[in-house]
Amino acid sequence: MKAQIISIGNELLIGDTVNTNASWLGRFLTGLGFTVSQVYTISDELNQIKRILKRALEESDVVICTGGLGPTHDDITKKAVAELFGVGQKLDEQTLAYIKSLFKERNIPLSKSNYSQAEVPENAEVLFNKAGTAPGMWFKENGYLAVLPGVPYEMKYLMKKRVAGKLREAFGEIGYLHSHYIKTAGVGESTLSDEILGDLSEYFTNGVSMAYLPSPGGVTLRLNASGKTEEEARQRLKKLTSVIHQKAGDYIYGEGKDYSISEAVGQLLIERNWKISVAESCTGGLIANTFTDVAGSSDYFDGGIISYSNHVKVNQLGVSESDLESVGAVSKEVALQMAKGVAEKLETDIGISTTGIAGPGGGTKEKPVGTIWMGWYQKGGEHFAIKTMFTKDRLINKERTKMVLLETTRRMLKGIDTMPYDLKKQLP
Amino acid sequence: MKAQIISIGNELLIGDTVNTNASWLGRFLTGLGFTVSQVYTISDELNQIKRILKRALEESDVVICTGGLGPTHDDITKKAVAELFGVGQKLDEQTLAYIKSLFKERNIPLSKSNYSQAEVPENAEVLFNKAGTAPGMWFKENGYLAVLPGVPYEMKYLMKKRVAGKLREAFGEIGYLHSHYIKTAGVGESTLSDEILGDLSEYFTNGVSMAYLPSPGGVTLRLNASGKTEEEARQRLKKLTSVIHQKAGDYIYGEGKDYSISEAVGQLLIERNWKISVAESCTGGLIANTFTDVAGSSDYFDGGIISYSNHVKVNQLGVSESDLESVGAVSKEVALQMAKGVAEKLETDIGISTTGIAGPGGGTKEKPVGTIWMGWYQKGGEHFAIKTMFTKDRLINKERTKMVLLETTRRMLKGIDTMPYDLKKQLP
Repeated sequence: MKAQIISIGNELLIGDTVNTNASWLGRFLTGLGFTVSQVYTISDELNQIKRILKRALEESDVVICTGGLGPTHDDITKKAVAELFGVGQKLDEQTLAYIKSLFKERNIPLSKSNYSQAEVPENAEVLFNKAGTAPGMWFKENGYLAVLPGVPYEMKYLMKKRVAGKLREAFGEIGYLHSHYIKTAGVGESTLSDEILGDLSEYFTNGVSMAYLPSPGGVTLRLNASGKTEEEARQRLKKLTSVIHQKAGDYIYGEGKDYSISEAVGQLLIERNWKISVAESCTGGLIANTFTDVAGSSDYFDGGIISYSNHVKVNQLGVSESDLESVGAVSKEVALQMAKGVAEKLETDIGISTTGIAGPGGGTKEKPVGTIWMGWYQKGGEHFAIKTMFTKDRLINKERTKMVLLETTRRMLKGIDTMPYDLKKQLP
Repeated sequence: MKAQIISIGNELLIGDTVNTNASWLGRFLTGLGFTVSQVYTISDELNQIKRILKRALEESDVVICTGGLGPTHDDITKKAVAELFGVGQKLDEQTLAYIKSLFKERNIPLSKSNYSQAEVPENAEVLFNKAGTAPGMWFKENGYLAVLPGVPYEMKYLMKKRVAGKLREAFGEIGYLHSHYIKTAGVGESTLSDEILGDLSEYFTNGVSMAYLPSPGGVTLRLNASGKTEEEARQRLKKLTSVIHQKAGDYIYGEGKDYSISEAVGQLLIERNWKISVAESCTGGLIANTFTDVAGSSDYFDGGIISYSNHVKVNQLGVSESDLESVGAVSKEVALQMAKGVAEKLETDIGISTTGIAGPGGGTKEKPVGTIWMGWYQKGGEHFAIKTMFTKDRLINKERTKMVLLETTRRMLKGIDTMPYDLKKQLP
């Protein structure tokens, strides 16, 4: 079944408010098995509201319309709906009684515009709104239409408590969509799709689909399927999931929408009962911050030294002053010494490091902005560095360094030989 | 003039991604004097893209379309545009050369789908995209159309550097909206509006308006005005800006949308030629990361020690083991010792520290989740701590700690006596 969403409000069009309602509704309706084919974001303008309501009802089986139900003069959604359906307004006694009781509690006198809050088009079935003063409305006219307030928690309350039931009544057994997220790192979107995964279209049957969601950190694969039950939808993704794991196993650090690379590294450290520490120059605290965003990270993350200036590198991490003079802070030697230095100083099993030119200033001909060295030291084990060349943008450089550093650490802990983006290990 | 926005992407419809592009574009176009009459959010579906492009071009003077320009099979915007206009595709040599140079720099082989990134419909004027690999496109056919990548920073780059100029060429004199942002910290929205600023409506003439934008970090005031020139719009905000400074001076740390509290602190440190260092436990790198997000921060930020475990607190910062045993890591004593320890160890003029229970686990009856101590040490100057009680949410606790820590540092450097949120200084 097809659903469309209409978001009404000038504040959305001029960019004062981000339309989070539409994405919440998209997720909710998709979860119920609807295909959301379009979101219309429009202004508080009578004729436009009428025109788009009519169009959306023609184009879909159900329309969810939010916004423009407040008590002020620019809120005219109810008028538009009544005119579209050629009906007048009626007073909803239950809503009026509820508004009166709310105002009495707060000791505020009822104004004329508060009365109008309790009015609805004559053909509306009222969806009683315990979360606010504007009632929701349900219409059955050339398709189904829900009209809801734009205040996010009122809208969500009415969707969950009222509209979901109405939709089940109207459409009987509505299905479930299941989305499964597979997170990869250290490989570009095009290499992943063209060379590693290749053509997967043979698995796109029974409503199974897949999307690539790239970000500076890595590529997330979103697999979708729907079914009569959540379990059925879930089952339909099993085959594709296992094929992806076979083909891209080494690049996959985890599953789940919000699963992060630092959680993946943390999980592997816990398995080994190992501790890690960080020595950060160009990332300046980002790596430590990423580790400590994860609850329970104190089990494997002991701390770090942010050596933004050279004297901190020398005094706290034991970096060689003569190397700083001869090859400079952004070098293989210094990255290696920082990683070893922090592991020894903080007494951890692994130390990792970053030193580079994040930008926008500070570049030279030999070491342009975006030149970044990273180092790894494992007690009694590997000791190596990697050089990368990123962008001119400071924050993107920090983010990409984080991903290469953590993905390399993950591969090291997993015993995977290849490096992210085919970068080369450089030994001391 | 009327503008419409088309946002393409299944991830927007199923609610995986919030459509922040549309609100940014809404603000940008409104600023140029356009009336944004509608946003269409649609799927990566050939016929729907063609249908909506046609409709939007009929309904408005200019259409900005974003998304669906990636290298994978589900990105089909260029195909839809070419079919709508009845033209084929051509290769854009400048874009291809740029993509090749990017891949060469990073040592990644070019795949077939990377070539297709450089293809555009024959009637397109290419808007060269220095921020990524997908070129922007400009069309003049029954109205003006810009087709841009959906990656936010690429889209913004192209709007500012390419499309704005095209719009001025096409429409001549377009007006300006000027927004001015005043950033406050350490005061709640209701105290700021009710007690400090009071009723400002007498200044809301000539299209001047103001909005409170609260966040976990502080309250930003956004002042808007429009005019025939940017200067005229700017002038209209002068009076209101100066009144706000008179009333809320001590709470204002700076102006400008993206101006951060760490920049404000950095500015004051530069004026004194002072260096700062951080000792972080519960914030785990967030403070250092915030400092180093600012270009040029190496002039005043020397580094820090992330002492997530107690042994790092003792060995690297000289925190007293007996205090850790008797009063615990989350205490006034430890916060004070951490701040002094890091300033002495890293030889900086100021040291600041955090230690607390970020959550969600780790709370006790005496020290529930959200209990956080911060410390300040100034060489030859002040030495004090502050205790706060925040929420149960780990990331919000980190963010709020950051703001109180930096705002207190700012007030200390400015010689402002009051503490954020009327918190109390506690001396050793």
